[in-house]
Amino acid sequence: MDTDILRVDMQSLRLKREMTNEAYRMLGGRSFIARALLNEVRADSHPLGRHNKLIILPGILGGTPAPCAGRLSAGGKSPLTGGIKESNAGGVAGHKLARLGIKALIFEGKPRQQGELYLLLLTRDSQELIPCPELKGLGVYEAAERLHERYGKKAGIILIGPAGEMQLTAAGITNTDMDGEPSRYCGRGGLGAVMGSKGLKAIVIDDSGTRAPGSHDKKRFNEIVMEIVRLIRETPQTAVVYRNYGTAALVSTTNAIGGLPTRNFSTGSFEGAERISGEALRNLILERGGLATHSCMPGCPIGCSNLLPGKDGKKLVSPLEYETIGLLGSNCGIDDLDAIGEMNWLCNDLGVDTIDVGGAIGVAMEAGLIQFGDSRGAINLIKEIGRGTVLGRVIGHGGALTARVLGVMRVPAVKSQIMAAYEPRGIKGLGVTYATSAMGADHTAGNTVRVDIDHHKAEGQVRASRNAQLTATIYDSLGMCLFVGTAVKGRIDLLADLVSSHLGVPCSADDLLALSRETIMVEREFNRRAGFTKAHDRLPEHFSEEVNPASGTVFDVPEEELDRIWDGE
Amino acid sequence: MDTDILRVDMQSLRLKREMTNEAYRMLGGRSFIARALLNEVRADSHPLGRHNKLIILPGILGGTPAPCAGRLSAGGKSPLTGGIKESNAGGVAGHKLARLGIKALIFEGKPRQQGELYLLLLTRDSQELIPCPELKGLGVYEAAERLHERYGKKAGIILIGPAGEMQLTAAGITNTDMDGEPSRYCGRGGLGAVMGSKGLKAIVIDDSGTRAPGSHDKKRFNEIVMEIVRLIRETPQTAVVYRNYGTAALVSTTNAIGGLPTRNFSTGSFEGAERISGEALRNLILERGGLATHSCMPGCPIGCSNLLPGKDGKKLVSPLEYETIGLLGSNCGIDDLDAIGEMNWLCNDLGVDTIDVGGAIGVAMEAGLIQFGDSRGAINLIKEIGRGTVLGRVIGHGGALTARVLGVMRVPAVKSQIMAAYEPRGIKGLGVTYATSAMGADHTAGNTVRVDIDHHKAEGQVRASRNAQLTATIYDSLGMCLFVGTAVKGRIDLLADLVSSHLGVPCSADDLLALSRETIMVEREFNRRAGFTKAHDRLPEHFSEEVNPASGTVFDVPEEELDRIWDGE
Repeated sequence: MDTDILRVDMQSLRLKREMTNEAYRMLGGRSFIARALLNEVRADSHPLGRHNKLIILPGILGGTPAPCAGRLSAGGKSPLTGGIKESNAGGVAGHKLARLGIKALIFEGKPRQQGELYLLLLTRDSQELIPCPELKGLGVYEAAERLHERYGKKAGIILIGPAGEMQLTAAGITNTDMDGEPSRYCGRGGLGAVMGSKGLKAIVIDDSGTRAPGSHDKKRFNEIVMEIVRLIRETPQTAVVYRNYGTAALVSTTNAIGGLPTRNFSTGSFEGAERISGEALRNLILERGGLATHSCMPGCPIGCSNLLPGKDGKKLVSPLEYETIGLLGSNCGIDDLDAIGEMNWLCNDLGVDTIDVGGAIGVAMEAGLIQFGDSRGAINLIKEIGRGTVLGRVIGHGGALTARVLGVMRVPAVKSQIMAAYEPRGIKGLGVTYATSAMGADHTAGNTVRVDIDHHKAEGQVRASRNAQLTATIYDSLGMCLFVGTAVKGRIDLLADLVSSHLGVPCSADDLLALSRETIMVEREFNRRAGFTKAHDRLPEHFSEEVNPASGTVFDVPEEELDRIWDGE
Repeated sequence: MDTDILRVDMQSLRLKREMTNEAYRMLGGRSFIARALLNEVRADSHPLGRHNKLIILPGILGGTPAPCAGRLSAGGKSPLTGGIKESNAGGVAGHKLARLGIKALIFEGKPRQQGELYLLLLTRDSQELIPCPELKGLGVYEAAERLHERYGKKAGIILIGPAGEMQLTAAGITNTDMDGEPSRYCGRGGLGAVMGSKGLKAIVIDDSGTRAPGSHDKKRFNEIVMEIVRLIRETPQTAVVYRNYGTAALVSTTNAIGGLPTRNFSTGSFEGAERISGEALRNLILERGGLATHSCMPGCPIGCSNLLPGKDGKKLVSPLEYETIGLLGSNCGIDDLDAIGEMNWLCNDLGVDTIDVGGAIGVAMEAGLIQFGDSRGAINLIKEIGRGTVLGRVIGHGGALTARVLGVMRVPAVKSQIMAAYEPRGIKGLGVTYATSAMGADHTAGNTVRVDIDHHKAEGQVRASRNAQLTATIYDSLGMCLFVGTAVKGRIDLLADLVSSHLGVPCSADDLLALSRETIMVEREFNRRAGFTKAHDRLPEHFSEEVNPASGTVFDVPEEELDRIWDGE
């Protein structure tokens, strides 16, 4: 099936639909973003200036019945890291874009007048930029509600909150789930600020009257889909653990090995871990009549999402995930799931990354602005973001900037992006990923927590991270959830079969791995042009010099090994 | 004469006096700092961490009767730019250190407990670290007064203010002039924060009982000194202009060519320029009984400094200089010398760079926090720094960080350091220096404003900047005021003669130029290791894309020329 690129010039407000260049045919999600940014954006341009571009698109398998393959990717030069960025999320928008035959949305330029605000309405037959001053400053929940009223409950919505409008560099881009809830965040790297700089508040996708994109060999495609679904249903991690406990199941796992970030990453285990664990969360949800199993997109047989009601039984937030619990919880010394849920909802509503804001609150606590464990103080700090005060802006720019302003040296960040909820001295493979990924400290870029390895030893971590990074890049390009990988494990051939039967071109596991490696090289080349060197592929020095009391280790993977990570197979 | 390096370990509080390594014999000031930092400090270490070192020393000619040769250099890895930094100033401390036979002070490590505060007392016979909790948080004026009471009026004092103690990255290091006034600032690059990170509030230098360092060929040395003094007295710029009007004479010069930064560098001429000009300043000073001619160090026949009284006839500030007038004045739309003088005093007292704080206030005005021209608002912003509020900390971290926090794209900075008072589209040679200097946007690194060239044309600017940078590095290494260069012009041979007759080693003009070039290469190598590439040797994109209305030009020196600046002779 033919798909087009839709270019949207935010200065002239002109739209142009163009056929996809042959070179982009095999690319989707992250691999498309890498290549298009390198080709089209000067790496040294200002990330919030008119030369940067915002790219939003599904993965290669978007719109198909392949399980969990509707993830939405957003990309651009990051105003947080200064390097290349792709961030992806579940929700319904990825599938819907694919059903409209849209390969990618590329937003260029920026409005002449600061403060102009538009929404892009996409239907089967039309695409239109519409001024939307009435949405200015609205939180994503209210904005989504209004847009659903106007364009129908079934429309998919991609959206930024006030933080994105204010161009705060920890702002994310959200999209709606099957319940219409706007809480599926492409959260990392400040892409919400890029969207804000373009004067774009929302993209509304009405895919009524469309069909799923046809596959070249539908029969074969469906066979593999069935095989993958079978694997998901037979694998305990996806069939039982994620299904019942969601990602929060990880709390006990990481806490046990000294890998749960606690009080600004000063240690890796938390005395309140049990109270914020997957078990505690499940009990709380079931007790209040919420959903402990929930899917964020059509065709997901895992259901790792959840819906947490508050004390009054009404919905508090959906989903509450491990990364948020780690950063806004243990990292802030907070063991109260209701408080964490409230913080999560506030961050979502304002449109900021819970990881970077959690990091910011952690350093603010280390600086003594408020005390560790002070959940009311933490909630107030998040509310400051919405008020647009100088303090709020500082927090909304993320943890690295907050540390710089407040004079905190121990900042858990690489390339100015806060680490996810894996302490890098306790789980050293993640430390390697944080250091070497072009994306900055990102867990999804190459998570080693489930690799069968001694996480406290330096040996083998570079290899483990490399493998995880190569695999992750494939999923990020297919638009497929990483958790499918937990079930299919090393069966990259199954994914290759999906691609070849869908597109009708030969594709082997080796082809996918080559595409993945090439994508990573393109990303590194963009960063090289943007001014990054191996000096940026490092963890902050205190992780190598101060012992994590919970693991008894420092981060000691040799720098020469980090520098040679891409020399290996 | 033999001189020693005094190493001060701020963790163990141990001092060690060691003979100067032969390789450092011909080095002083900036050239010493470059080599010592490359040899001793990991370029990727945290600038406020224990691995950074603070180096304070005179130039090669420090302590001698050579005119204007007592400048004090401070250096370290900059917490503002992340690169190498040397900043120097007049005052008495440089000469006094040399008279004590101290080649350089090198401060290493940092106290185990944050908040510990020490002063280093140096006399002819002793050197001692003394706890000084009683000086905590004191402005430099009061701190200097107390130290003068305790150690005598004649002691030279090197000092940081509250901004340095707070480790704000626009903090400078000051030292006292001949009146005991602590307002000679090594202002740029945040070296005051490095001093603060080491828990060092002050260095008190009592040089009683010492003599000037002897020169190898005293007769020849004195002959050249007389020759240079003669040139200074015969050159109109040094004998008349600087003497009568100080550096403020530049206001009319730069304003006329569209090179006076105005309202956050949005244009290069200011409707209020006449009211802040050298003439206006001189008239105001004379009217109030101040000093329009004033020397900052012994042996200065120029006297470009001044003493401005307030409306009540009491001293307001000394000196008030061009850079401060440009950044806190026209750049903020302020044309009131009394207000600028008050802001200058406040910045001095807190110990922050007037250039970077002026840049910060300019971007705060562009962001709408206060209005351009609002001198009361500007004064309050500076006072915020002293209050230690989040807003104050933001401002005290300088203009680039302030712009990032407030979301201002048009930030006049390179390598996160605010440009000095030369608009780079109106005076393109300065643009080249800003872009290519390892120091960030620094005017003293290579000032082309007096070069006989069309400042609006791109042609020849790279060559002009290269020559200026090579010459400046010589003066910065000799410890000699750049204004001597205005008088001796191209006679580098005179400076070489001074060095050889002083040290008793052969030294030609070519040797000095070679030393200068090598110093610049060492600085670039440090920055390379710290993660800098040619992507950092650029002006912000708006200077190339938006016309300076006052000059009718954009900055259009080709990037390839910038990248090849050190390929040329």
